[in-house]
Amino acid sequence: MTLPAAGVAPIVALTTDFGTRDPFVGLMKVQVHARCPAARVVDLTHELPAFDPAAGAFWLERAARWCPAGTVHVAVVDPGVGSARRLLAAVAGGQVFLGPDNGLLGAVLESPGRAHVIDLGRLERLGLGVPSATFHGRDVLAPLAAELAAGRVEVEALGPAIDDWVRSPVPRPTRERRGWRGAVVLLDRYGNAFTNLGPKQIGAASNPVIVVKSLRLPLRRTYRDVPAGSPLALVNSFDAIEIAVAQGDAGAQLELRPGTPVWLEAG
Amino acid sequence: MTLPAAGVAPIVALTTDFGTRDPFVGLMKVQVHARCPAARVVDLTHELPAFDPAAGAFWLERAARWCPAGTVHVAVVDPGVGSARRLLAAVAGGQVFLGPDNGLLGAVLESPGRAHVIDLGRLERLGLGVPSATFHGRDVLAPLAAELAAGRVEVEALGPAIDDWVRSPVPRPTRERRGWRGAVVLLDRYGNAFTNLGPKQIGAASNPVIVVKSLRLPLRRTYRDVPAGSPLALVNSFDAIEIAVAQGDAGAQLELRPGTPVWLEAG
Amino acid sequence: MTLPAAGVAPIVALTTDFGTRDPFVGLMKVQVHARCPAARVVDLTHELPAFDPAAGAFWLERAARWCPAGTVHVAVVDPGVGSARRLLAAVAGGQVFLGPDNGLLGAVLESPGRAHVIDLGRLERLGLGVPSATFHGRDVLAPLAAELAAGRVEVEALGPAIDDWVRSPVPRPTRERRGWRGAVVLLDRYGNAFTNLGPKQIGAASNPVIVVKSLRLPLRRTYRDVPAGSPLALVNSFDAIEIAVAQGDAGAQLELRPGTPVWLEAG
Repeated sequence: MTLPAAGVAPIVALTTDFGTRDPFVGLMKVQVHARCPAARVVDLTHELPAFDPAAGAFWLERAARWCPAGTVHVAVVDPGVGSARRLLAAVAGGQVFLGPDNGLLGAVLESPGRAHVIDLGRLERLGLGVPSATFHGRDVLAPLAAELAAGRVEVEALGPAIDDWVRSPVPRPTRERRGWRGAVVLLDRYGNAFTNLGPKQIGAASNPVIVVKSLRLPLRRTYRDVPAGSPLALVNSFDAIEIAVAQGDAGAQLELRPGTPVWLEAG
Repeated sequence: MTLPAAGVAPIVALTTDFGTRDPFVGLMKVQVHARCPAARVVDLTHELPAFDPAAGAFWLERAARWCPAGTVHVAVVDPGVGSARRLLAAVAGGQVFLGPDNGLLGAVLESPGRAHVIDLGRLERLGLGVPSATFHGRDVLAPLAAELAAGRVEVEALGPAIDDWVRSPVPRPTRERRGWRGAVVLLDRYGNAFTNLGPKQIGAASNPVIVVKSLRLPLRRTYRDVPAGSPLALVNSFDAIEIAVAQGDAGAQLELRPGTPVWLEAG
Repeated sequence: MTLPAAGVAPIVALTTDFGTRDPFVGLMKVQVHARCPAARVVDLTHELPAFDPAAGAFWLERAARWCPAGTVHVAVVDPGVGSARRLLAAVAGGQVFLGPDNGLLGAVLESPGRAHVIDLGRLERLGLGVPSATFHGRDVLAPLAAELAAGRVEVEALGPAIDDWVRSPVPRPTRERRGWRGAVVLLDRYGNAFTNLGPKQIGAASNPVIVVKSLRLPLRRTYRDVPAGSPLALVNSFDAIEIAVAQGDAGAQLELRPGTPVWLEAG
């Protein structure tokens, strides 16, 4: 796969747990701009939970649905940096995803996709020098993203193809007698709870009902379909069934957290 | 009005309540970059109070004073998304403002400006596809901003002109016998209190005094004109009379909040 | 020194205490983009402690080590704005640094570098107009950064060279009989403590040990070299000796803060 040639404006999208308090993210961007001035660098989030790749895996796969082919993602939630954990370059849906092999790329790779291990021994030939032991985002992944975005290197050249990557940590919904059992995957900044259930589980059900914390919620279309302060469920703008409270905080009000069980009665 | 042709670098400025914890803002930027690579996308703020358009309306109008003609703003504080509330495209001072019709564009439209309702039925012709029910920032406003910035569409083509937009929620100062009665509009991150009073209310007064919480504060020029820890008033860098505490937090120290009354004695 | 001509994509890097809640940073970027469309603007941090230039001075110097020649930095931690404090344009390592003369540029200037005072009287000739009294980041420094990045003005033209700039507030390590006495300079978002000690102090020591809070920590290579929850010391990716807790928060767990003494026994 060859990415867009320089001249076009490839998008490099960043998804990390680095926060924005320190210059970590900024220095990743500097590496991209210095090597690929044509790139447009976009922050998807830098507030992933630090030591859990599930929310990251979920967001990365969902966000990529609204990114054009040719986008190069750099994803870092990497408590194992400097250990023997591998770095991957994955290709799925015409986009490239660089990140550690700890599950973070697992959901994207179900799209389906294929993965190459990044061979650190080849980096010097690409002019990347010797990376630090503890900041591969700045020293390996961002420069590689720029090289890929600039069309100077191809994913296949980074290292051998593998198929034993760490699988997605996002829990899968399981079919039950009267529907599906799923779970809350993450809470967004409004307190809306994203679940691992969606249109695929709803299928052709005419009156699907979401059951959570002993509430029975029919599916609504928007937050305005119930009175302010009332709980509701809807298929949100990321194709996830979401549990919300109109103009309120569902996470706090209903005591939802990642892992909270949610049932879909697809009656 | 035609915006700058591609080749120039139009500015697309974002003002929302989305926060930066989730990929909402990033995916708006992706839509802009993918449709208008020449655009420079700038975050004004993503920390507007979630369910109150007043601070947003104020900031949008003030920030625009320091943006060049041709800037396209996308403003989203939109608890009514998916309901019958209208989306607007406003033009004021040579800049374009896209956002919901809930008062958020009200202050800008006093500049003066004019407004068009965005006809969602026309979006398909513009290649925008069918928007989600709950994320018009990503699916309608950002793509439209890019089309406008790229010069491929004009505001007039988005929908009919109207003049019954929701007016500004920013309180207006009222003239009193010995000056003006105003109010705190917002607190900035330092705890400085921006009021709705400014040079226009001061007029030619030779010794204006700001009265707040039984303090009488003459107007200063900078934060250094009083000792550290002392309260002061000045005309700030956004042409608003501001109540501050030198090297301190006026909001906390003086118990100021949006709506706190402030008098200007224009003696 | 002449910076890159327009056509290349110069990097403008921002390091401030403005936070991102208000449009302060965004309006600085607007000034840069409007004057130098070719520039790539990067946030290093906007979360510097508000009234202390030490962390800023440290980060600015360290971050610049990973920025290319020609980068123009704007640095603002400026409680003295509007007072008689000077604004500086410093040149070090082929990069330019604009900021107040309060120590913020002090560490960079030890690189070594040279400094010019920005003569505000010359700004009108550069088309900058009259700045506000309280927001020189937007009205002076960002426009100047753009003019420098665009190659339309040189540092020497901004004002006279000086050598009495305010020196770096970053504490210096002192040599002791059995090694060095240093201190924590800042805590990053993970709670890792950056010290003012580094490879230079380690020198050729074969078994350096870091002593902090009565812990004796040998130098490790990565966070994975000790069990989760255990304290460790390493030379981090910014060439600083860092005290961390594997998958934990060293600042909270070990009660570290800026100024906490740290010894290096270079045995």
